[in-house]
Amino acid sequence: MSVPSPWFDPDDDRMSRAAWSRMTEPDDLGAARLVTRYGAGPALGLVLSGGDRTVGVEDRWRARVAGLDPRRDLATLDRFRGRLIVPGDPEWPSLLDSLGERRPFCLWARGAARLSDAARRAAAIVGARASTEYGEHTARELAFGCAERGISVVSGAAYGIDAAAHLGALACGGPTVAVLACGVDRPYPRGNVDLIERIADEGLVVSEVPPGSAPTRNRFVHRNRLIAALAAATVIVEAGWRSGASITAKEADALGRCLGAVPGPVTSAASAGCHRLLRDGAICVTTAAEVAELVDPIGSAAVQQPPLVRALHDDLPEVDLRVLDALPLRQPRPSTSLAAVAGLDLPTLAASLGRLELLGLAVRTPRGWRRSPTSG
Amino acid sequence: MSVPSPWFDPDDDRMSRAAWSRMTEPDDLGAARLVTRYGAGPALGLVLSGGDRTVGVEDRWRARVAGLDPRRDLATLDRFRGRLIVPGDPEWPSLLDSLGERRPFCLWARGAARLSDAARRAAAIVGARASTEYGEHTARELAFGCAERGISVVSGAAYGIDAAAHLGALACGGPTVAVLACGVDRPYPRGNVDLIERIADEGLVVSEVPPGSAPTRNRFVHRNRLIAALAAATVIVEAGWRSGASITAKEADALGRCLGAVPGPVTSAASAGCHRLLRDGAICVTTAAEVAELVDPIGSAAVQQPPLVRALHDDLPEVDLRVLDALPLRQPRPSTSLAAVAGLDLPTLAASLGRLELLGLAVRTPRGWRRSPTSG
Repeated sequence: MSVPSPWFDPDDDRMSRAAWSRMTEPDDLGAARLVTRYGAGPALGLVLSGGDRTVGVEDRWRARVAGLDPRRDLATLDRFRGRLIVPGDPEWPSLLDSLGERRPFCLWARGAARLSDAARRAAAIVGARASTEYGEHTARELAFGCAERGISVVSGAAYGIDAAAHLGALACGGPTVAVLACGVDRPYPRGNVDLIERIADEGLVVSEVPPGSAPTRNRFVHRNRLIAALAAATVIVEAGWRSGASITAKEADALGRCLGAVPGPVTSAASAGCHRLLRDGAICVTTAAEVAELVDPIGSAAVQQPPLVRALHDDLPEVDLRVLDALPLRQPRPSTSLAAVAGLDLPTLAASLGRLELLGLAVRTPRGWRRSPTSG
Repeated sequence: MSVPSPWFDPDDDRMSRAAWSRMTEPDDLGAARLVTRYGAGPALGLVLSGGDRTVGVEDRWRARVAGLDPRRDLATLDRFRGRLIVPGDPEWPSLLDSLGERRPFCLWARGAARLSDAARRAAAIVGARASTEYGEHTARELAFGCAERGISVVSGAAYGIDAAAHLGALACGGPTVAVLACGVDRPYPRGNVDLIERIADEGLVVSEVPPGSAPTRNRFVHRNRLIAALAAATVIVEAGWRSGASITAKEADALGRCLGAVPGPVTSAASAGCHRLLRDGAICVTTAAEVAELVDPIGSAAVQQPPLVRALHDDLPEVDLRVLDALPLRQPRPSTSLAAVAGLDLPTLAASLGRLELLGLAVRTPRGWRRSPTSG
C-alpha cells in the first residue's frame, strides 16, 4: 500500500526528520537504525512506499502514515516563531550525539537563545514535583549562581524543583533551557504556562515531539535523556525514593556526565532519593560553586597544566605518560573513559594508574581518577 | 640522678603502664618506642635510674618523675570501682593495636560493660557540640537503632551530638562507651556529669589519662584516635567546617575504618563539615540500618560467600583468585588495604582488579573495591 505524499522529497533531510518525529515515539531504536542506515529521506521513502520488515520498516509506524504532513507541523512552529534544529545545523549541540542511536531526529525549538551556545556550559538542575520549600529555595539559589557564572540551566519545566531552577536562572538574566515532553506550542503543566512562555522569550523551549503532541508518560521518561545529554553535569535537588529525577540521574551517569545530588535532612522524604544517589556515588553538591566545578569542561585541565610537568616526569614509561596526559587536573574521570582517552585496555590502564598512584601523581576519587594536585 | 621508688618493680607491667600513663601525654611516640623496645617495666627503670637520651629517655618525662606513684592512681581508681585495662588482658580490644605506636599504654575504666565485648561490634557516633535539634534528634535515632541491633555506641560524652548518641543507646538499654579526655573520676563537661555517671553504671567510661587529669586541648585531640580505633565505623552527625569531629573522621579513615557522614540541609552551618566529608568520599548515612552496614565486620563476607565461587572461576590466574578472595562481598575495601590482604604490590593488584572488573567480578565503588553481587 503506497500513500500519495505531495510534500515528500527524499533529499529534504529537515522535512524528513520532522516527519520521523511525528511518525514515531521518542527513543524508537528501529527508526533510528533505519535513518542511520539510509538517511532520513530515503528511509522515510521506504515507509511511504509500503516497505515491510524485510527492509526494516516496522508496523507500528503505519498508523501515522495516513495523515502525515510535516508541512503542517512546521507551519504551526512558524506561527510560534519557532525553528526546527536538526543534526548538521550549526545550532545542533554535539553533546546530543553522545546519545548514539537514542539521539532525537530533530528538536522543535522556540526562543532567543542558541541551543549550541546554551549547551556549551550547562548544568541540568532537576528534581521532584513534590518538593519542599527547602528544595525550591536551594534549586533557585544554585540556578542563580550558575547563571552568575555563565552556566546555562537545563530543566524540565515541571512543578517544584524544575520550575524553581528555571526561575533562579531567569532571576539572574541567565540562559535557561526547558526541555518539554509535549509540543512546544502547548506548554505543560498548565500552571507553568507563564513560566514556559517567559523561557520561550528569554531562553529556549525545546522538544523532540512535534507541535500539538500531548505529554504522555513515555514521552516524559525519554525526555529525561535529553536533559541529561544537553548538560555537562546533572544535579538532583530533591527526589523521592522512586522518582523521575532518578531516571535523569541514571541517564547522566550512563552518558558519562557528572552527577551531583543535594543533601537534605534525613528526616525529609523529599531528600531520600538524593541520599540514595549520594550512597551510589553521586557527588555531594551544596553550592553553585560546586555545581560549576562539575560543569567545567574536562579540557580545561589541560589549560591549567603547567608545561613543566612532562619534563619532570621524563623517566616515566611511555604508557604512564599517556595515562598522565589523559588524567584531568580537577574533575575526575572514570577508568573506562580514561582507557578511551589514553587508548589503552583496562588492565594496562589499571596497572599504570597503580604506578602513578604509588608515585603520588594520580589520585583515586569516588568519581574516578584525576591528577594529584602536586603533580603539576 | 636517681629517685627512690619503693613501688617500682620492673616485672610489674600493669603498674609500670599506669606510671607511663601518668608520666607522659597521650600520643608520646618516644615513650611508646622505648616501651616497645624494652617493655614497660624495664623502660620505666631506665627513666627512674636517670637514663638520658643516649638510651632513649626524653627530658620531658623528668618533670613528672619526682612525685610519681602509680599506687595512688590505682587506689583512686579503686575507690570508683574502676579497673586498669592493659594490652594482654582478656578485656583489651585488639582493635586498639591497629594504632601501632600510637596505642595507649593502658585504659583507666569504670563500668559494667566489658571493653572487648563492646568493641567487637561498635559504631562511633560523634559530632559538633554546637549542634542543632535536627542533629541531636538524628544522633539519638541512629544510636537507638544501633543499640537495637546489638551495636555498641562509642562517643566522647561532649555536649550536643555526643551526648545525644550516648542517650539514644542508653534509651534502648544498649551498651555505650564514653571515651574521656580527662580522668574517669572527674567527668567533663560538668553539665554532662549525670550522663557520664549513668554511662559508668550501665556502660563503660574509659580514658588513657590517669585519675585526676584535667581535659586539655591536646588530650581532646588525641582522645579522638581512641574513639575511631574502638569502632569498626565512625559516623559524623553534625560538624562545622572546622571541627573536632573531623579529626575523629581523619583518624577513622587513616585506620582503614569505615567513615560515614549524615547529611543535613545545605543551609545549615552545622552540617557543612559533614557535606565536606561526603564530598571527600565519606559514605552518606541516613538510617541505623546503614550504620549497621558499615559496622558489619569485613569477615562476614566470607560467611555469605557460597563455596561454588572458586570452582566457577577455576580458570582465573592464581593472582586474580587471590584478589577475588580478598574482595569483600559488601563493604568495599580500599586498594591499599586489598594489597595488604592479598599480599600483592599495588600495580599487580591494580592490573588484577582491572581484569576482574572486565569480567564483571569486581566492582569499583567510592570507598574502594568489592565483589560483584553476581560473582557469587
